[in-house]
Amino acid sequence: MENDNCNHPKNSGFTIPTKVSRAAKSDSTIVNIGGVEFGGSAIVIIAGPCAVESREQLFETSRSVKDGGAHVIRGGAFKPRSSPYSFQGMGEEGLKLLREISNETGLPFVTEVMDTRQVEMVAEYADMIQIGSRNMQNFPLLKEAGMCSKPVLLKRGMMATIEEFLLAAEYILYHGNDQVILCERGIRTFETSTRNTLDLSAVPMLKSRTHLPVIVDPSHGTGLRWMVPSMAKAAVAVGADGLIIEVHNHPEEALCDGQQSLNIDEFFRLMTDLKKIAQAIDRNI
Amino acid sequence: MENDNCNHPKNSGFTIPTKVSRAAKSDSTIVNIGGVEFGGSAIVIIAGPCAVESREQLFETSRSVKDGGAHVIRGGAFKPRSSPYSFQGMGEEGLKLLREISNETGLPFVTEVMDTRQVEMVAEYADMIQIGSRNMQNFPLLKEAGMCSKPVLLKRGMMATIEEFLLAAEYILYHGNDQVILCERGIRTFETSTRNTLDLSAVPMLKSRTHLPVIVDPSHGTGLRWMVPSMAKAAVAVGADGLIIEVHNHPEEALCDGQQSLNIDEFFRLMTDLKKIAQAIDRNI
Amino acid sequence: MENDNCNHPKNSGFTIPTKVSRAAKSDSTIVNIGGVEFGGSAIVIIAGPCAVESREQLFETSRSVKDGGAHVIRGGAFKPRSSPYSFQGMGEEGLKLLREISNETGLPFVTEVMDTRQVEMVAEYADMIQIGSRNMQNFPLLKEAGMCSKPVLLKRGMMATIEEFLLAAEYILYHGNDQVILCERGIRTFETSTRNTLDLSAVPMLKSRTHLPVIVDPSHGTGLRWMVPSMAKAAVAVGADGLIIEVHNHPEEALCDGQQSLNIDEFFRLMTDLKKIAQAIDRNI
Amino acid sequence: MENDNCNHPKNSGFTIPTKVSRAAKSDSTIVNIGGVEFGGSAIVIIAGPCAVESREQLFETSRSVKDGGAHVIRGGAFKPRSSPYSFQGMGEEGLKLLREISNETGLPFVTEVMDTRQVEMVAEYADMIQIGSRNMQNFPLLKEAGMCSKPVLLKRGMMATIEEFLLAAEYILYHGNDQVILCERGIRTFETSTRNTLDLSAVPMLKSRTHLPVIVDPSHGTGLRWMVPSMAKAAVAVGADGLIIEVHNHPEEALCDGQQSLNIDEFFRLMTDLKKIAQAIDRNI
Repeated sequence: MENDNCNHPKNSGFTIPTKVSRAAKSDSTIVNIGGVEFGGSAIVIIAGPCAVESREQLFETSRSVKDGGAHVIRGGAFKPRSSPYSFQGMGEEGLKLLREISNETGLPFVTEVMDTRQVEMVAEYADMIQIGSRNMQNFPLLKEAGMCSKPVLLKRGMMATIEEFLLAAEYILYHGNDQVILCERGIRTFETSTRNTLDLSAVPMLKSRTHLPVIVDPSHGTGLRWMVPSMAKAAVAVGADGLIIEVHNHPEEALCDGQQSLNIDEFFRLMTDLKKIAQAIDRNI
Repeated sequence: MENDNCNHPKNSGFTIPTKVSRAAKSDSTIVNIGGVEFGGSAIVIIAGPCAVESREQLFETSRSVKDGGAHVIRGGAFKPRSSPYSFQGMGEEGLKLLREISNETGLPFVTEVMDTRQVEMVAEYADMIQIGSRNMQNFPLLKEAGMCSKPVLLKRGMMATIEEFLLAAEYILYHGNDQVILCERGIRTFETSTRNTLDLSAVPMLKSRTHLPVIVDPSHGTGLRWMVPSMAKAAVAVGADGLIIEVHNHPEEALCDGQQSLNIDEFFRLMTDLKKIAQAIDRNI
Repeated sequence: MENDNCNHPKNSGFTIPTKVSRAAKSDSTIVNIGGVEFGGSAIVIIAGPCAVESREQLFETSRSVKDGGAHVIRGGAFKPRSSPYSFQGMGEEGLKLLREISNETGLPFVTEVMDTRQVEMVAEYADMIQIGSRNMQNFPLLKEAGMCSKPVLLKRGMMATIEEFLLAAEYILYHGNDQVILCERGIRTFETSTRNTLDLSAVPMLKSRTHLPVIVDPSHGTGLRWMVPSMAKAAVAVGADGLIIEVHNHPEEALCDGQQSLNIDEFFRLMTDLKKIAQAIDRNI
Repeated sequence: MENDNCNHPKNSGFTIPTKVSRAAKSDSTIVNIGGVEFGGSAIVIIAGPCAVESREQLFETSRSVKDGGAHVIRGGAFKPRSSPYSFQGMGEEGLKLLREISNETGLPFVTEVMDTRQVEMVAEYADMIQIGSRNMQNFPLLKEAGMCSKPVLLKRGMMATIEEFLLAAEYILYHGNDQVILCERGIRTFETSTRNTLDLSAVPMLKSRTHLPVIVDPSHGTGLRWMVPSMAKAAVAVGADGLIIEVHNHPEEALCDGQQSLNIDEFFRLMTDLKKIAQAIDRNI
């Protein structure tokens, strides 16, 4: 019987797990979200508010990010909040709004699921389910996502090594779902001037180890609205397959993460800039 | 409507949440686990194997730690493992074994629960349920623990600030359960010679902020069997209300964390030493 | 009399020091190194070996990086090594070789100084002196650099906050030298797959706070040769005013940092790619 | 010729350097400071103000710590301050005052040296010279300390691994001085509620690797006066050979680090408590 210590990252050598590794599958995996492909030469932009707050807020923002060139909508219905006194999300009502605006705009949407009991329900509404940073090592949730019929966006834990991140993805593939997108979203360090430290070296590191698509979240990675465009450009230059960006029609009124959300004008300008960077590396948005 | 950014610890001031704070309740809370009291002048010792592996292993180890002076048994039936290829625990069968040896020895037991769907079942067997490091911000699980009738041992996330730790406990109290014990178990830092960095300053810091009992896990905190006794003594000297220590009848054959488990002889010697330290600070074990 | 705690970054608010701040001088400072300007619209490339090892190695590498389009040569004569048993550098003999190849190629050079007693001597040979990561808070050295007639390349300490980095630069300006270039070179985090974590968010953060030029060192920032090009491109995209890159004519034979040095062909290819990124953000190399 | 990468701690195995290792010398080294022995069974207490501010402040504090049972006086004449605008110390005048009060009380004193050019001068006044955290990898300074006739107190860098710390000490022994005491003083982590995270596991780790004495600085390790006693007791319990504690006759008026300095009464009470802990582990103070 095995006698391992694989919870012990510091002492274990960096070993690439079987199913997620390039060794197991050298071709890059293309993950298809309602017709939008991640992992090919095109760079995919996911945009929308942190949380679904109201029909008006979600619909106005979603229509705008579509006009700006986004390919996928994001929005949280179940919110993981450090404090029980913070806004916890609209729940299933939020999922219905997301489904409605997704149908109207023709853009697929991704939304977070936090509870094993809700995976099935969320997957009925969503085109892709997201597992957030705080749940990257919630193994029962990873297992449920592995048995789910929808693609999974897996965010790196804020203190997870690259190896642990790949092993978390391995849980999903192991349980049967190979439609997984990895997302670097900033790690926790001693530096306090940004919310997290966006580790862009994770992108080439992950792309060298795994065939799965890798995207970047510059909004949580910096926590600072004015810094999002710079880091988004760097993420494209470094080789990310996509970005997930928080956009809000009125950031100053947001119930969650307003200080890191772009407004509509900022998002439009950013898309123009990103296209130039993509072109410079022979890709397109 | 509130507009907070409480997921943003770096930018937020350190604010003590309501129910867990000393401001809300200046008297220290005594948590009673099957007749054993945490948070009083006596220091409580929880001991046992990382994982329940077999009847023989669990029973032999449990009888030995009782003889050595332990007050509570620990043992994992559901194991959070970084890799899907590692031993995942015996499940409900493990819980039954724990209940049986607990009844035989008269020592209550604590065991980890990882899935919201299992809280009720685990709580039927266990005297105290444990929420592990990786689930410290699994908010649905905290909510279930808050609605559970058994005490909760909440371990600090390896990347969690003191403030986030207290807010996680607040979720449990907020949902109705005020029988919570906090456990410092090491944080992740740049240092690689130990598995984690056991942050003993967390003990006085937590005790100054909250009325809840605070214990220390020197086994996960160091990851090194030979270092566990030194750090256990330091934990008592710094003011911890208890310790949770991994002990295995045959550490070299353990399916999980063998390299950080004490053998029976080491545990006996440690208990003798700990009593002297406790006496030196006018407490007892 | 003042009663400050400015060694206490966590508790102090982020206060921009006087002389380095944008508030003190809103125009970006242009630092001129032997005719090469840092801080304007052109992006400047510093390249060369980690250490000067021999005339042949230095001269061959220097001529090649010139052919590849580098603007400034780098090379260490005094090497800060963790172990006393490692190669410590050629000393003044190395400086003479650097001066000779600098004169031949017409490219100015930068080299590290570690000792207050050597600042004057090094400054006689070099076009710019470098203060390395491990000396970022060597205050007597900063003071000497402040009284020196040559520009200073100040590298961020691997454990330094943005605020501490700016305060270190402030020491140099305070003592009379305003020709300072800041260099992000990776910070120390829990992640072990790269040598350091290159914090590209430091570039926009620093540029927003100070008028001084900011460059990036992707070689030390990653420690991995194959990853240097990706991170170099990202550094240009994020807004760096320059790059400092380790190049060696035979990396596999290098006495220091061979595993992170580009060979000549790799450097040539990278320069081609960087020019495209620079163009995409309306700058040039 | 060697081709090492010993500046690359993450990739190198943990190798014990020659002269400082237990393998080289299994007996614990006793370092004698003006008659006071570090590294034997007695635990040694160094106490005094962060900085020498005036004759009255230094003399009053020194006489008091002697009455409280301290064995060695500490006090800074040259202060490493993050900002050039902070109090930089009294310089040689401070050394003279330290020498005077040391002669009067009969207690030897330790003081920091920051500049290679001052090692000789400081060593003429002091009984032991200190190399501070920020200079742990100031290699020319380590070399000078290695050629100095006085013992050296080497503080761990706030982001230095155990291996790097031992290699820094190796520089001193390599250059001829084997009278070195190591000091754990807190490392930098993500946690912000304490100034640093005092890594008490460093004590048993260092004691297992090296024959040199190891002491602990709970003042810088926590940055919080009220927490110093708890952590000091833990440091004795974990096996430290001594403590270095900031004490000030009027902490609220201190020019440096007042918020982490004990007042005289607190120091007296602490000494009483420490003696009990020392006794419990069969040592004495």
